[in-house]
Amino acid sequence: MIFVTRKAHFNAAHRLHNPKKSEEWNRETFGKCNYPNWHGHNYVIEVTVAGEADPDTGFVIDLGKLKGIIREKITEPCDHRNLNLDVPFMEGIMPTTENLAKAFYKELKEEVEAIAYDDSVLYSVKVFETERNIAEYCPYRMKE
Amino acid sequence: MIFVTRKAHFNAAHRLHNPKKSEEWNRETFGKCNYPNWHGHNYVIEVTVAGEADPDTGFVIDLGKLKGIIREKITEPCDHRNLNLDVPFMEGIMPTTENLAKAFYKELKEEVEAIAYDDSVLYSVKVFETERNIAEYCPYRMKE
Amino acid sequence: MIFVTRKAHFNAAHRLHNPKKSEEWNRETFGKCNYPNWHGHNYVIEVTVAGEADPDTGFVIDLGKLKGIIREKITEPCDHRNLNLDVPFMEGIMPTTENLAKAFYKELKEEVEAIAYDDSVLYSVKVFETERNIAEYCPYRMKE
Amino acid sequence: MIFVTRKAHFNAAHRLHNPKKSEEWNRETFGKCNYPNWHGHNYVIEVTVAGEADPDTGFVIDLGKLKGIIREKITEPCDHRNLNLDVPFMEGIMPTTENLAKAFYKELKEEVEAIAYDDSVLYSVKVFETERNIAEYCPYRMKE
Amino acid sequence: MIFVTRKAHFNAAHRLHNPKKSEEWNRETFGKCNYPNWHGHNYVIEVTVAGEADPDTGFVIDLGKLKGIIREKITEPCDHRNLNLDVPFMEGIMPTTENLAKAFYKELKEEVEAIAYDDSVLYSVKVFETERNIAEYCPYRMKE
Amino acid sequence: MIFVTRKAHFNAAHRLHNPKKSEEWNRETFGKCNYPNWHGHNYVIEVTVAGEADPDTGFVIDLGKLKGIIREKITEPCDHRNLNLDVPFMEGIMPTTENLAKAFYKELKEEVEAIAYDDSVLYSVKVFETERNIAEYCPYRMKE
Repeated sequence: MIFVTRKAHFNAAHRLHNPKKSEEWNRETFGKCNYPNWHGHNYVIEVTVAGEADPDTGFVIDLGKLKGIIREKITEPCDHRNLNLDVPFMEGIMPTTENLAKAFYKELKEEVEAIAYDDSVLYSVKVFETERNIAEYCPYRMKE
Repeated sequence: MIFVTRKAHFNAAHRLHNPKKSEEWNRETFGKCNYPNWHGHNYVIEVTVAGEADPDTGFVIDLGKLKGIIREKITEPCDHRNLNLDVPFMEGIMPTTENLAKAFYKELKEEVEAIAYDDSVLYSVKVFETERNIAEYCPYRMKE
Repeated sequence: MIFVTRKAHFNAAHRLHNPKKSEEWNRETFGKCNYPNWHGHNYVIEVTVAGEADPDTGFVIDLGKLKGIIREKITEPCDHRNLNLDVPFMEGIMPTTENLAKAFYKELKEEVEAIAYDDSVLYSVKVFETERNIAEYCPYRMKE
Repeated sequence: MIFVTRKAHFNAAHRLHNPKKSEEWNRETFGKCNYPNWHGHNYVIEVTVAGEADPDTGFVIDLGKLKGIIREKITEPCDHRNLNLDVPFMEGIMPTTENLAKAFYKELKEEVEAIAYDDSVLYSVKVFETERNIAEYCPYRMKE
Repeated sequence: MIFVTRKAHFNAAHRLHNPKKSEEWNRETFGKCNYPNWHGHNYVIEVTVAGEADPDTGFVIDLGKLKGIIREKITEPCDHRNLNLDVPFMEGIMPTTENLAKAFYKELKEEVEAIAYDDSVLYSVKVFETERNIAEYCPYRMKE
Repeated sequence: MIFVTRKAHFNAAHRLHNPKKSEEWNRETFGKCNYPNWHGHNYVIEVTVAGEADPDTGFVIDLGKLKGIIREKITEPCDHRNLNLDVPFMEGIMPTTENLAKAFYKELKEEVEAIAYDDSVLYSVKVFETERNIAEYCPYRMKE
């Protein structure tokens, strides 16, 4: 099994706020991340595809095409945008790093698997909010 | 001459918009950086002090104290904030990387030089908006 | 399944020496790492928690609280310390990167899982002795 | 289970070209990577061994010896070389990142497992062609 | 004085060989860098412009436009190319890191200064052949 | 003027303690850095040589030879050592980052300039104690 990873990045604003909860609950739960006037990050994402290499090309997936899909589905809609207000596929979802990883995975899965070799799968999406805060969504790695 | 540097970081939202100019001028000049709902960055800053080392301590400046000044003057007011709306010393200044470097330098100069050894000076402040976009304010390095 | 990772770091001295073995065996086995007057590293650690995200907060675990637990259990006892002499939970354990990863995992497990959402688990602890030498303790990833 | 990783690097030239296919197919499939006069990369590799730590040494594997095997089997034959023309174990194999990871794994497996503790295994080999393009060969991590 | 830096990167093959000298001299002088079948690098470059910020834009130079000039003048001609054979402005020049930095500076100077604010200058070009081998061409920083 | 830089690294233990001062002064001045049982760092150093490139080789200095000098004069005596106890050229000097940069410069100057082209000079030595704490000794860059 070969795991191929492509890195990308974008810059966006966001804020953590659960509109179903009180202001006080939000302040206590999210602290600085709840500040009203937004803050932002240089997000880095790693998209990993797992499968075998096509004997003709030596590729599990053409990384140039994968780069194009990531740009169209993730980078273009998110870059220099507000993740709470501007990104259609994040509507109604709080933009925590966890939720971003899961939402990006869903956005990418179909198109990525359509161009990957044979029965390769979109294995995981990892999102770095900062160098220190990271979330990875991976439906194939079990905890037990 | 010894140059001592301390690195710090904060996450903030901003937007480039010159209120004295038309919407059209702003869109054309700033492109994606002018999007109305803000975007943001993981800012990294490098503060450099130049001087000789105190023979008793071997320090040009106590980096623990320098860290404290950077936190109080820069990180606390900027972290998880909106650089256009929330930071008193940026009022009326467009938050380009250039202007941030210059404003941070002014904020830090007096307190930093007060605790640095002998006649050491605050030599420069460097701001990384991203890994690829960087501005440094340095009144001591001339272009000719 | 979502994997959330928090990075931390500390600086410490250590030395590899097995007191049950001869001086000669130690010199031959550990080479430079056996030098008598200690050496040291900027250790980086990555703590990963696996589980689902709490629908109210969007968090598998509150990274601010995780940061606090890592500081209390690992960074405070280890930072600027001698891993052979000063750290209670390393008593009688040779401070190889492997043993540090395992010991840190044990120190963190209970408190981390107590604050993580639902039945999330402490998935792994990764220790970077240098950028080139790395050990990860993970009881959930099997080799077969 | 403990996973121990050693990082190494080398600089090499390569070109993607499948001699069984037409010039046109190659240009279309590989784009810039098919340019006739070669291009090159600073390759970084991560070699991971999985097992338990030897109670006498605290090591899953002696990283100094692992470094030596990586140098002898991978770095020496590949460094400052042309991966299409100069490397015996790559003969007849297109030097994509995927194929390099798999070939390096095969080159290393026997010697690495011979010196690792007990029944530890060579778990994976990860190759970074650039910071953004990465392939990992791992026969132990399944996709389902 | 403000120093604004933009980072870029490209991948290329090269070889150090002085055709005016004997094979033996070349082998002895350049060692592995003289191997006949080329090797290559992930080159990183940093382009620095020095000047004052335009009060209307807060920019010393529009980094989007600088990025475009670097792409047109440096990245496009060099990326996935052979620096000895394919790059017009390197004809007759040995592609050491030193010579690349100087040649890139000359290629960029006129166009960069034409779009920078007021009398800003192209201050320096820094080329990273690897993370460990770096050359910077800077006509404004004197050694004495 | 071209500035050529070579990076190197070593791991060492140290402690900040001025034997001419009281225990109390030392504890107050150096805090955690004064802990009695040592701590340590992964030191990174950058050695920069300034001059013109030799027209025959395209080198300001042969980086392979510079690497050898750095190893002989700095890395060999310091790696896996205690900077307070084991390094002859640090005898009687407190191992702050500032003092290390200055001492390394003195150790390297003569041998480096002997092999650099023409009248090139050892321009600076930069020492990273951590990624965040950095000191550079440079006798050629003035503060005014």
